[in-house]
Amino acid sequence: MPAKKKQDITYKSYLGLESLLQSQHPISMTAANAPAHDEMMFIVVHQTYELWFKLVLFEIERVQKILGQKSVKDADMRLVSASLGRSVAIMRLLVGQLDIMETMTPLDFLDFRHVFRSASGFQSLQFRELEMRLGLKKETRACYSGKSYDDFLPAEDRGHLQKLQKKPSLLEQLDSWLSRTPFVEMTGFSFWQAYRKAVGDMIAGDRKTIHADKRMNANARDAEINKLKGMEEQFDLLFDAGKAGEMPWRFSQKALQAALFINLYRDQPALQIPFRILNDLMDLDELLALWRYRHALMAQRMLGMKMGSGGSSGHDYLMQTIGKHRIFSDLFALSTFFIPRSKLPQLPPHVESRMGFKYWDDTGVKKPK
Amino acid sequence: MPAKKKQDITYKSYLGLESLLQSQHPISMTAANAPAHDEMMFIVVHQTYELWFKLVLFEIERVQKILGQKSVKDADMRLVSASLGRSVAIMRLLVGQLDIMETMTPLDFLDFRHVFRSASGFQSLQFRELEMRLGLKKETRACYSGKSYDDFLPAEDRGHLQKLQKKPSLLEQLDSWLSRTPFVEMTGFSFWQAYRKAVGDMIAGDRKTIHADKRMNANARDAEINKLKGMEEQFDLLFDAGKAGEMPWRFSQKALQAALFINLYRDQPALQIPFRILNDLMDLDELLALWRYRHALMAQRMLGMKMGSGGSSGHDYLMQTIGKHRIFSDLFALSTFFIPRSKLPQLPPHVESRMGFKYWDDTGVKKPK
Amino acid sequence: MPAKKKQDITYKSYLGLESLLQSQHPISMTAANAPAHDEMMFIVVHQTYELWFKLVLFEIERVQKILGQKSVKDADMRLVSASLGRSVAIMRLLVGQLDIMETMTPLDFLDFRHVFRSASGFQSLQFRELEMRLGLKKETRACYSGKSYDDFLPAEDRGHLQKLQKKPSLLEQLDSWLSRTPFVEMTGFSFWQAYRKAVGDMIAGDRKTIHADKRMNANARDAEINKLKGMEEQFDLLFDAGKAGEMPWRFSQKALQAALFINLYRDQPALQIPFRILNDLMDLDELLALWRYRHALMAQRMLGMKMGSGGSSGHDYLMQTIGKHRIFSDLFALSTFFIPRSKLPQLPPHVESRMGFKYWDDTGVKKPK
Amino acid sequence: MPAKKKQDITYKSYLGLESLLQSQHPISMTAANAPAHDEMMFIVVHQTYELWFKLVLFEIERVQKILGQKSVKDADMRLVSASLGRSVAIMRLLVGQLDIMETMTPLDFLDFRHVFRSASGFQSLQFRELEMRLGLKKETRACYSGKSYDDFLPAEDRGHLQKLQKKPSLLEQLDSWLSRTPFVEMTGFSFWQAYRKAVGDMIAGDRKTIHADKRMNANARDAEINKLKGMEEQFDLLFDAGKAGEMPWRFSQKALQAALFINLYRDQPALQIPFRILNDLMDLDELLALWRYRHALMAQRMLGMKMGSGGSSGHDYLMQTIGKHRIFSDLFALSTFFIPRSKLPQLPPHVESRMGFKYWDDTGVKKPK
Repeated sequence: MPAKKKQDITYKSYLGLESLLQSQHPISMTAANAPAHDEMMFIVVHQTYELWFKLVLFEIERVQKILGQKSVKDADMRLVSASLGRSVAIMRLLVGQLDIMETMTPLDFLDFRHVFRSASGFQSLQFRELEMRLGLKKETRACYSGKSYDDFLPAEDRGHLQKLQKKPSLLEQLDSWLSRTPFVEMTGFSFWQAYRKAVGDMIAGDRKTIHADKRMNANARDAEINKLKGMEEQFDLLFDAGKAGEMPWRFSQKALQAALFINLYRDQPALQIPFRILNDLMDLDELLALWRYRHALMAQRMLGMKMGSGGSSGHDYLMQTIGKHRIFSDLFALSTFFIPRSKLPQLPPHVESRMGFKYWDDTGVKKPK
Repeated sequence: MPAKKKQDITYKSYLGLESLLQSQHPISMTAANAPAHDEMMFIVVHQTYELWFKLVLFEIERVQKILGQKSVKDADMRLVSASLGRSVAIMRLLVGQLDIMETMTPLDFLDFRHVFRSASGFQSLQFRELEMRLGLKKETRACYSGKSYDDFLPAEDRGHLQKLQKKPSLLEQLDSWLSRTPFVEMTGFSFWQAYRKAVGDMIAGDRKTIHADKRMNANARDAEINKLKGMEEQFDLLFDAGKAGEMPWRFSQKALQAALFINLYRDQPALQIPFRILNDLMDLDELLALWRYRHALMAQRMLGMKMGSGGSSGHDYLMQTIGKHRIFSDLFALSTFFIPRSKLPQLPPHVESRMGFKYWDDTGVKKPK
Repeated sequence: MPAKKKQDITYKSYLGLESLLQSQHPISMTAANAPAHDEMMFIVVHQTYELWFKLVLFEIERVQKILGQKSVKDADMRLVSASLGRSVAIMRLLVGQLDIMETMTPLDFLDFRHVFRSASGFQSLQFRELEMRLGLKKETRACYSGKSYDDFLPAEDRGHLQKLQKKPSLLEQLDSWLSRTPFVEMTGFSFWQAYRKAVGDMIAGDRKTIHADKRMNANARDAEINKLKGMEEQFDLLFDAGKAGEMPWRFSQKALQAALFINLYRDQPALQIPFRILNDLMDLDELLALWRYRHALMAQRMLGMKMGSGGSSGHDYLMQTIGKHRIFSDLFALSTFFIPRSKLPQLPPHVESRMGFKYWDDTGVKKPK
Repeated sequence: MPAKKKQDITYKSYLGLESLLQSQHPISMTAANAPAHDEMMFIVVHQTYELWFKLVLFEIERVQKILGQKSVKDADMRLVSASLGRSVAIMRLLVGQLDIMETMTPLDFLDFRHVFRSASGFQSLQFRELEMRLGLKKETRACYSGKSYDDFLPAEDRGHLQKLQKKPSLLEQLDSWLSRTPFVEMTGFSFWQAYRKAVGDMIAGDRKTIHADKRMNANARDAEINKLKGMEEQFDLLFDAGKAGEMPWRFSQKALQAALFINLYRDQPALQIPFRILNDLMDLDELLALWRYRHALMAQRMLGMKMGSGGSSGHDYLMQTIGKHRIFSDLFALSTFFIPRSKLPQLPPHVESRMGFKYWDDTGVKKPK
């Protein structure tokens, strides 16, 4: 870039403020022959939402580019973590941003609500893209007035999403990446086998303790034994390939195993960053859920039970999405199958040592025990 | 208080820190022969919650004391507003405070979760008292494993709540206070009659417009007319004493009318503070709902689908309360029945003038128009 | 607006997303032949700041339009309060928004910092306009590298601000509005005289108590008496027209008196909203200060002591503005002169009654005592 | 613990609520013969602050225990990061918690301010301990009314702090830990030498560019050359042992070098967690500064320029601490000496490889390039 041009850059030109600050066009018209005062706020709030969505998408794209590789460089994992951390920070801001919207009262909203008729936040292409990139499947989406979400989109947007749908989502990329985790299965070590045994031992031990407890009466004992049975059956949802189908697992078995392994042995140097990444994804999922819920509360406050243009209330639709639109729910469900640290299978030394850094080997540095 | 004693007061003695900072007693015991590290955090988080609940109760008690009077001094309304505003600020903090809890991972939680067996946040007497004081009714409460919430409380706490239940709740006190609002019904003016007429006129006008619109085809016209009918039927839930029963209104009809009046004519000097108070109550209700929801998300993250001691998962119970434990839902539902400001009945001058301040009358101050 | 056009409105067209989402133009170029990743974040953060500034300005303009009138309708005061409340909510968001910026590390910033050379946030016209509208005076502004802030602005922006400077600021409008407060001076009542007497009585009483306290030794007594003298001298800064000049008061004496009156008798119906407005202005002032401080911390973190293009560090400049750019500092200073409620002069009944609502007079409603 | 006892545990007993909720003892007495309403809030706010301080101290103690070892296990670094992350989350909450305090108005505060005479938050032992543990030195502390902070503490607290002062602070432990970083100095590689050369090359390159730029006139060229000289002199503060004394560096030179190295090569697997830890410490430092500043603003709002019992205003003291009580300022200052990534010395392969994980070596896993 020639020096001359650089010097011409001003704050205003760099940020494109000339047009940015002229992009608010309230269209309502009150008796006073002016737009309703609160329409400006309404526009600015939505515009900032869209700008932030653009940034979250930009970060998620980087994550996808890295995790989508056949083999991921360890150095790149910090970038994945940084992009997810930033996305989480933005989503936290966006949840809080609803405070601004709620400075508007329902009566103020009525002053201009009619102007956008069927136009609605429902049509945000970027938000749909975000959900899709993360891994929300079309089949699990809530319907709005019996119609699919993309019936409400202009044709070009629908096309854009259809193309995107053919590409692997972050959830799918994460699945492949997890499935490749070494350590879970190494010469002389099968985590899955070891874990299954540890769970079995734990339950057997508990059963023994219950039977040996002389202070318990028969009823109490039966209740405790029943609880134990329930737990056993629950673990079948994980271990028993036949019953796993009863769980709405989205991850492959291999990925599930690796995710469990990472959670349980997270202190191993090679797992610290992967563990953090799984956590960041759960944060992101939670914040999206929280955003939907605050959104639903706001819709209820603004419109009560007023019908949307399609015939069902915005509040009801949003409440549906809260349950259905979770993406990384496998990661949440996994904690069902954690067992206390004291019962965990111990890692064989040759497995554990491979999860460490290389410098202990050959740099005279003394390794602590 | 004698001067000597005053001088003895130190920061430490004033706040009772000696005992406060000795009140954390972790009881877990790990292999390392020490309590699990995260138990301290768990205790401190819950203790601060309880301290804040104490303060919210203290503020709500002041609100109840004032609003429970047969006649409320205008000067006291600022106190009501201040106490509600503070309660809202505290609830906002408490929602955010879950961030601290979420710095604990499920595996850390497992290290000490077993120690409190059936003890659970479910047994927080203060939170039950708060719900009850605000106006949550026993009948509407969600059950936990088929049992009522008070089956889980010690006898003395149950007794405390039973006594409290006989006293009027804030919702009931608000109902009486609203019902006494002058202006809604004054010589020569009935808001209810005027509003009903305005709604009727609005709908009739819309119907006329639809029929006159030559660009619409028959189908479109039928759809629009049907929407209008739907709206008409919805308004019956407000106006038609017979159909009002279909709505789960908790307010009396008189209170509903006044709440609507206050919302619609909120700019009148005498209504500005009442309007703000209704808003504060909605904020409080929303924040309680949000707190429950974040709580449910956290339970899911910590425990997955692990059963609580009673046999159902904490997450499921909490999700139930979100829908059922709303208190001031009438205030949210009311916005269904707002009509645009331009269609509102105009207040007769003799009604409007009484909502103003007295000083214009007799202090040479020139009143602006 | 013809019905046809209305139906064409989509979410995308209404918000101008086509151009809004194409307005991010990173100009850095790394070795990888692509812009530095974090430049996108940098642009989006600044663009959202500018959008929010536009909204705050829009709200402050409404406040100025109302408060700038010769006589203000009571009904409009709710609008003033709503606009200030919204501005406060936005500023709170903007303080939090720095969290996003701090997801960037200094090394990431270095990747593209050079591209905007002398362009800087310093050139934000809207922020300058906000400071000016609120009432920041040119003389009190901190200099940056010995130059005035407007030396850094393009000519057209400088012109815009010069025109604005000739119009009354919110601080000046507030001064006029406060100065017109009735009640402070009414037939048979002068607040100023009464307050001065109350302060005098309080100090005299304290002096008497000290002298009468036999348990105090001479040294302690002298110390207490000296403190009392200090307090007396401080009150001269308020009461003594000659010494008031020692305080950097920006309000006229009449406005100061009214602001004090409003603070002390805030429970009177006619003062509840004015009191809230003074509080909102203090919130706004505080949040602006907080924003500057977080900004300074961030600059320090990103650049350490690196020089800005003008030769002094951004951190140092920002730290200067924190002290100098406060606007409603008179409102903060006023609390120096509050005396305990129990020592306040009681309002004569004819003054107090005029601060009440009119409806007690002539509606059968029984006034509470 | 015997099973029987476990079953007795209730929510109430576990949290010690019986005494916790009886520990609020307002001592003011208004004309109405009851404590001032806002005193309860004042007590609860301070009690929750102290509870949180206890938790932060507990976390910092864990960090110190780990980092204070002669050799630190890599697995423990996740614990350090978790404890710092939690401390940061708590401090963020504590900054926000001032919102609750600001629901009190100055006049409300005056109702009970006199009761605690010289007792003040200044006497918080835990906060002093926190500052000391982190590494604030006695000499750098701001004085309050010419007295040292410990003149205000009871003798037993002073003793406690004196003992603590003899133990290494976190800052000192961090210094040792950093100083031991391998990689910075390895056979065939000296980071310090390489970095110094890179800086020299960068400056020489810039100088050449300036002289070669024919479009610049003599004045502009001189200015640019001067800037470059300034930069060179600044780097002497880092490289030149003689001039380093001009900087208030608290870290040893070895620690400084390692901190710089970690910042610049943070993507290397072995540096990702150390980098995050340095960042967490900066977050903590920033939040402590922010808390002090909000505290100062609040003091100003509550008391204006009212004197504290010692003769200087709380606001002035707090503003002093903001500048003086920063602890990890070296980490902030370091960014002054970062150079763009493209100019960084490249790490020799034998150094870089040692920062990787061991598993690439001998597990058939194919290492990505």
